Amino acid sequence: MAEKLKIGLFGFGCVGQGLYHVLNNSTGFKASLECIVVKDKTKKRPIASELISYNKWDVLDNGDISVVVELIDDAEEAFEIVSEAMRRGKHVVTANKKMLALHLNELYALQNKFKVSLLYEAAACGSIPIIRTLEEYFDNEDLKRVTGIFNGTTNFILTQTINERISYPDALLLSQEKGFAESDPTNDVEGYDPKYKAVILALHAFGKIIDEDKVLNLGITTLQDEDIQYASEKGYKIKLMPVIERLDDDKFSVFVAPRFVSKNSQLYNVDSEFNGVIVEGKFSGEQFLQGRGAGSLPTGAAVLSDVSALSYGYRYEFKKYAQSQHVEFTNEVMVEIYLRYNNPADLEMFDFKEINQKYTEEKYSYVVGTINLNELRTKRKYILDNKLFISLVSNKLTLIVKTPVVEKGVVEEKSKILIQ
Amino acid sequence: MAEKLKIGLFGFGCVGQGLYHVLNNSTGFKASLECIVVKDKTKKRPIASELISYNKWDVLDNGDISVVVELIDDAEEAFEIVSEAMRRGKHVVTANKKMLALHLNELYALQNKFKVSLLYEAAACGSIPIIRTLEEYFDNEDLKRVTGIFNGTTNFILTQTINERISYPDALLLSQEKGFAESDPTNDVEGYDPKYKAVILALHAFGKIIDEDKVLNLGITTLQDEDIQYASEKGYKIKLMPVIERLDDDKFSVFVAPRFVSKNSQLYNVDSEFNGVIVEGKFSGEQFLQGRGAGSLPTGAAVLSDVSALSYGYRYEFKKYAQSQHVEFTNEVMVEIYLRYNNPADLEMFDFKEINQKYTEEKYSYVVGTINLNELRTKRKYILDNKLFISLVSNKLTLIVKTPVVEKGVVEEKSKILIQ
Repeated sequence: MAEKLKIGLFGFGCVGQGLYHVLNNSTGFKASLECIVVKDKTKKRPIASELISYNKWDVLDNGDISVVVELIDDAEEAFEIVSEAMRRGKHVVTANKKMLALHLNELYALQNKFKVSLLYEAAACGSIPIIRTLEEYFDNEDLKRVTGIFNGTTNFILTQTINERISYPDALLLSQEKGFAESDPTNDVEGYDPKYKAVILALHAFGKIIDEDKVLNLGITTLQDEDIQYASEKGYKIKLMPVIERLDDDKFSVFVAPRFVSKNSQLYNVDSEFNGVIVEGKFSGEQFLQGRGAGSLPTGAAVLSDVSALSYGYRYEFKKYAQSQHVEFTNEVMVEIYLRYNNPADLEMFDFKEINQKYTEEKYSYVVGTINLNELRTKRKYILDNKLFISLVSNKLTLIVKTPVVEKGVVEEKSKILIQ
Repeated sequence: MAEKLKIGLFGFGCVGQGLYHVLNNSTGFKASLECIVVKDKTKKRPIASELISYNKWDVLDNGDISVVVELIDDAEEAFEIVSEAMRRGKHVVTANKKMLALHLNELYALQNKFKVSLLYEAAACGSIPIIRTLEEYFDNEDLKRVTGIFNGTTNFILTQTINERISYPDALLLSQEKGFAESDPTNDVEGYDPKYKAVILALHAFGKIIDEDKVLNLGITTLQDEDIQYASEKGYKIKLMPVIERLDDDKFSVFVAPRFVSKNSQLYNVDSEFNGVIVEGKFSGEQFLQGRGAGSLPTGAAVLSDVSALSYGYRYEFKKYAQSQHVEFTNEVMVEIYLRYNNPADLEMFDFKEINQKYTEEKYSYVVGTINLNELRTKRKYILDNKLFISLVSNKLTLIVKTPVVEKGVVEEKSKILIQ
């Protein structure tokens, strides 16, 4: 049976306040919130002042507190708090995707060394219980892919651009007014946030900890009206989609990029701040989960769900990681993209293997073709600097199988389509 | 860490063979299948004969076997096997929804008394991990409702009638040819199967064990072309939908009936043999899960997922039941329905509180109005015998609050709209 937990909370922003509300209004579960550590002494807060502390040691040194809930912004500061808490035998619940993505190796080691539990359902896809579903339900099944819409802010912006036909800058502004996007929206709109989530999910889906540096993230900052019109005319919506996909028995790939999504996809109707996840298993087929990707109460509820799980002694076993799945991460993949560019010099920067469509007029030029993901990754800065826009046009990923043929001193590349 | 389990399997039909395949092709998890108990000695089976037994005691008496997987049809025989296995300290995985719905009380007691685990994810909504999601993720959150499409066979039939505009008898025949419907399809088409599932989910969603006898199940056997045309003209699809819904803080209702579903519902696009579940939480908002509702491999994978969970010591805590949630089941609810009837005498059988639409022509008459669910329940036989068709037309359920006003010897009923 459940034991009553004493919680120390770090951070009292949107999610922290949501947790506070959900905790106080949950009929089934009682945990006691002992202390809330915040930074800004000048901010007025809607809670009893005796709960508030400005000193992290008030929680970390308190032996009665067995659970630390970490909900602050700064990833490195969060890592310090979380790792220190674990070293002191405290269980941790966090929603900090960046901290997790950057420190999965260390955190996994700390969890095992100090026999504590680290849970983070709220770090990926808000109210959708995707980590537990991967960890507990798909633990034995080889997965083909995990993909979807992991970021509510960009989905809100993209929904506005397509459904309301307003420009990207206007949609961004609107999302800031609504409180979805932060004043510095880089993390969301350049695709870092969904990349961190993809790195976390890759651990639970394929049992591998990936260096986030190696994962390409293209965002939506360079989206222009012509791109929106192109998508609309063809009946597509544009979604920013992380892809975690097995290419064959041995290889999988992870990247984040905009994608044209057609009506027959489950994700077509996942609009605004909603998130949707598709999990495709070898035996189960395609599963689809949808829920709120953001918001104070839904995310607070996700955090509370982790706290409750702690009271039953739950911990991630990292089952696929423990099974030492033999799949390896690769960027050697052919992807089919739409590239909107400014001038022939732009196009020459990209080594397309195949070009299927080419369109040119004075102010709008694009190609649709297949290109190596690794090649794309090396051109990320060029794409951003020159305001090119890239979107995936199909689900087709093709692993590049390199067969070194040493003949006349030339290494040939043989490309083989393995997955359609 | 996981211990290697020895399994005794009862039944080798569609799901049993799926489990066998999935178990043999799972890279992550190894359990050993020690014995398969079947009935029919004349049937040829695609497995090594030394695995086969015709005697249930070969499994029940075998002390090495710690897990019984029960996948036979007969509910009472299944209950005997399952309860005997539990008494002998064996863990049980079952997909038998009827057995579960009829014996939840006894099974719950057995689990506690003999400190064994009983898991049944495959019993509800095939490959969708709905029981674990309710049990582990929504354990502290007050739920508003759980609804959706829980039966793949009727969903296949209904999809055919609307999308292909073929009649109900033809669609039923087609679903039998495809192997979705059994030769006696009563269990599916009269709504018993989704009712059993609803009773199971009600335990995990609201913490109550309901007498399935008290739960109304209307099916699709009386569906006629006029009903299909009515739905099509209004842009609806017809779905057979169990509803498990909170009416206010104290009451909830459960029933199964066809429902007209409009384009803006998540369930509109859940077609053919797919299942979809909507869970609405107080804080999380609306969540949607979709996956394959039937099929040898997806269901086999769901069973294996339970077996794997056993190897980590997992058991349902029946958290909401243990919390003694104070909500009570009721049929005192007003529902808004479409009723297609044959003659005025039919209509007089039903005590509508309000009629909003009435249409009559020689061969086709219907009303749309609000009626007491309890009243509808008492007329079930009449509806079936006279081939009337009923479909819910909206999501609006209204709890009937009875305020006994003893005045002039009359008890008045005051109806109050509590939930929209």
